[in-house]
Amino acid sequence: MSLLKNLYRSSLALMTDLYQLTMAYAHWKHRAEELEGVFHLFFRRKPFGGGYAVACGMETAAELVEQFRYRSEDIKALAALKGNDGRVLFEKDFLTYLSTLRLKVDIDAVADGTLAFPREPLMRVRGPLLHCQLLETALLTIVNFQTLVATKTARVCGAAKGDPVIEFGARRAQGIDGAISAARAAFIGGASATSNVLAGQLLGIPVKGTHAHSWVMSFETEMEAFEKYAEAMPNNCVFLVDTYDTLQGVRHAVEVGRKLRKRGHEMAGIRLDSGDLAYLSIKARRILDQGGFPNASIVASNDLDETTIASLKEQGARINVWGVGTKMVTAQPEGALGGVYKLGAVRRHGGAWEHRIKLSEQAVKVTDPGILNVRRFRNAKGWIGDMIFDEEDGAGVSRRIVDPKDPTREKLFSRRSESETLLRPMFRNGRRVSKPEPIAESQARAREQLAMLHPTIRRLLNPHEYPVGLEPQLHERKLALIRAARDARREGAQGGQ
Amino acid sequence: MSLLKNLYRSSLALMTDLYQLTMAYAHWKHRAEELEGVFHLFFRRKPFGGGYAVACGMETAAELVEQFRYRSEDIKALAALKGNDGRVLFEKDFLTYLSTLRLKVDIDAVADGTLAFPREPLMRVRGPLLHCQLLETALLTIVNFQTLVATKTARVCGAAKGDPVIEFGARRAQGIDGAISAARAAFIGGASATSNVLAGQLLGIPVKGTHAHSWVMSFETEMEAFEKYAEAMPNNCVFLVDTYDTLQGVRHAVEVGRKLRKRGHEMAGIRLDSGDLAYLSIKARRILDQGGFPNASIVASNDLDETTIASLKEQGARINVWGVGTKMVTAQPEGALGGVYKLGAVRRHGGAWEHRIKLSEQAVKVTDPGILNVRRFRNAKGWIGDMIFDEEDGAGVSRRIVDPKDPTREKLFSRRSESETLLRPMFRNGRRVSKPEPIAESQARAREQLAMLHPTIRRLLNPHEYPVGLEPQLHERKLALIRAARDARREGAQGGQ
Repeated sequence: MSLLKNLYRSSLALMTDLYQLTMAYAHWKHRAEELEGVFHLFFRRKPFGGGYAVACGMETAAELVEQFRYRSEDIKALAALKGNDGRVLFEKDFLTYLSTLRLKVDIDAVADGTLAFPREPLMRVRGPLLHCQLLETALLTIVNFQTLVATKTARVCGAAKGDPVIEFGARRAQGIDGAISAARAAFIGGASATSNVLAGQLLGIPVKGTHAHSWVMSFETEMEAFEKYAEAMPNNCVFLVDTYDTLQGVRHAVEVGRKLRKRGHEMAGIRLDSGDLAYLSIKARRILDQGGFPNASIVASNDLDETTIASLKEQGARINVWGVGTKMVTAQPEGALGGVYKLGAVRRHGGAWEHRIKLSEQAVKVTDPGILNVRRFRNAKGWIGDMIFDEEDGAGVSRRIVDPKDPTREKLFSRRSESETLLRPMFRNGRRVSKPEPIAESQARAREQLAMLHPTIRRLLNPHEYPVGLEPQLHERKLALIRAARDARREGAQGGQ
Repeated sequence: MSLLKNLYRSSLALMTDLYQLTMAYAHWKHRAEELEGVFHLFFRRKPFGGGYAVACGMETAAELVEQFRYRSEDIKALAALKGNDGRVLFEKDFLTYLSTLRLKVDIDAVADGTLAFPREPLMRVRGPLLHCQLLETALLTIVNFQTLVATKTARVCGAAKGDPVIEFGARRAQGIDGAISAARAAFIGGASATSNVLAGQLLGIPVKGTHAHSWVMSFETEMEAFEKYAEAMPNNCVFLVDTYDTLQGVRHAVEVGRKLRKRGHEMAGIRLDSGDLAYLSIKARRILDQGGFPNASIVASNDLDETTIASLKEQGARINVWGVGTKMVTAQPEGALGGVYKLGAVRRHGGAWEHRIKLSEQAVKVTDPGILNVRRFRNAKGWIGDMIFDEEDGAGVSRRIVDPKDPTREKLFSRRSESETLLRPMFRNGRRVSKPEPIAESQARAREQLAMLHPTIRRLLNPHEYPVGLEPQLHERKLALIRAARDARREGAQGGQ
């Protein structure tokens, strides 16, 4: 299923910050495509105070890269942009260049549904610096948001302890694609269905839904409303029972459920959308059981998230399907994953890579230089730690990692541990080299990877930290680069005045 | 400029919760289009603890309604949906009905940029209940998000006290449309430009941007990077100065600015993206002034919002352009506006309207019945209060309002006060009857309306409450409906067991 191609009319080449294009223009003016770079897309902080993230959006990002091109209307829009002197920003030859541009990038990425931790590249883009730059904004938009929602959903599903979670967020999502992308990410993060029909159509996700308060309000009585719904759609009856009086509503559902059964159909369940969900679900369960509907589901919705679900579970709520909307699709309380796209190395085409580092007062903001990849180690029980390494250091990679936040801390993975490399080839010279993955496989991967994570790392509050470190050679090289940059800065500071 | 038509391939008719379609199906089965309804789209709580909201998204919503139709691929997707017995959900005749459906709704809406307060309908949709239902989800998605971001931006611009605010959020937005819709709403809320080229193309918003850290990192030295940028794009020079050492970067900018000036171009300014922005901007201002660049702008970015901007202003920061991203386009810390779409009345086609109310344990969640509109009163100094009234009560509307949260509180608007009605005809029988409004006019409206609001209501923290009340007849009718519904509930409770 192709999301972007079916959803958008545009190739989305203009879905970028202007400065990517002005930088591309300046690169083009000076050195055309000769200067090459390696960029890493990664985040610095685990969202929601949790112990992990679920990487997501790679397939959508791949679609973007595959269809990337400037159409004539895009070129027209760029030709109209002006500088601060009122003259055009881009000269004509550059626009001609863009109009025939085909990306020559190599992209390696983790698969959707892979667990991810701070500093680890989720995606690596290598090629003419100019081309890498043109992709930055859209890749970040796609991967930041989907990773955030997949992570949030994994937390929600963890709290639901195996109960189905249905994504109900469309009406509160941040824009139409906010809803569609959230439905995709929520499914990969563990949701079993969405209420969003367009997401179902574009992505092949199961779609669920029955009726709202307005259905009940459009009739004289609740009983009449339930009966009329059951008549029209006997094979899709989950009655929303809280329009007037919730437990009364459950009794009405039981009455209508009995009539439905006589006609050969089974009531699927009821939905609670307000009030004390713990109390009401326990009462409702009793009414349903005594009424002869022990298999009828109790669906709950109303501003749920992992915290309220965990609390309801603790209170013995008899809810067995969770409709989660706003807080999941807008990923509250974070709202955004701070993913970045940073230069790791540059070279003249054909030359050797020169590593690059960005300094910062904050150690966590100093970037890791090189052409990075990640190796994940496991023993018989599950994942035991990740190593960030430079691919140029060859295959004979150490089993030792250094904690970048505290280099006195090291960890050695046993010889018996196995490992796998997370970044895998997705594009070579602009052509997709990996097969698009069905969304259900990404969902299965997330589920399996989470199961291999120690429960103390999965827990919602104050989780244990999963070990992620730098391969020692990379660590040394980074230290040397920091020292050199600081020296150059000191000299520059003297020379500058 | 047409946003949806140029952005999306789909008509977005399937951008809906499934239950809207199952309800539509059930309505169709029973009464086809005969049953009519009036729905009001409104929110219950002012976002961000502020004193107002800026309504936004109406033009986008109008586009959705105008292009609403089920295409053959949509019908195919609906035909594939299954109920809990594995059989199809929708019978063929209903799908045929949908495939030729043309909306017969009347829509009245406030104009984009209008100030809005809790309970006030931003949009009123009237017509076959079935049709109204099909629009609910998408209207909410569009209006909830754009209103939230326009409101956030108005707060940010208020804190910036007239300095230009540029929307920089694309990479952290919630999906691609999350970025585009946010750019639109931010512009209407007061932003003067966006960094998002696609938003500029689709909406005609000014686009701004120069270069990033990666530009500087791709050269041996910062000086070289600035010089090369200035050579390539002399009319768009805002130098990002914090890649290595911020104040050193400012000195480099001054040096390059001098060379640029010799070539007949003026450096536009510098950008700070990290560190202590108050301290650094004051130092940078001095370096720029002493270097001969008193008119060079100091742009700041780095996780800004209204609170940090207000604090920087208080500290005497010499920033004069604000680049605001993540927190504005994802509207943190709220993330979602809880707008709802509630039934106010129903009738058989040609009959009289029967008012409808939804009860709730929480008084604020009890809906207002009727066919509502809003009248806004003003005196020579500005807005003085709003009246929610039922249009069926005729033109001779009272000047008195009753506070729905505390009916002992009333307010009488003086005879000298003038008033205007906020909901204006947008669609009649499915046809657009209002002219699409250029986005700059919506922006001007928000600016003018905010200027007419008392400063104590505009302030960021603990603002005064703007008076909004019910017209007395409406208030009385609502009380009567609540009593009747409670009585029916009591009787129902007895009859039910």
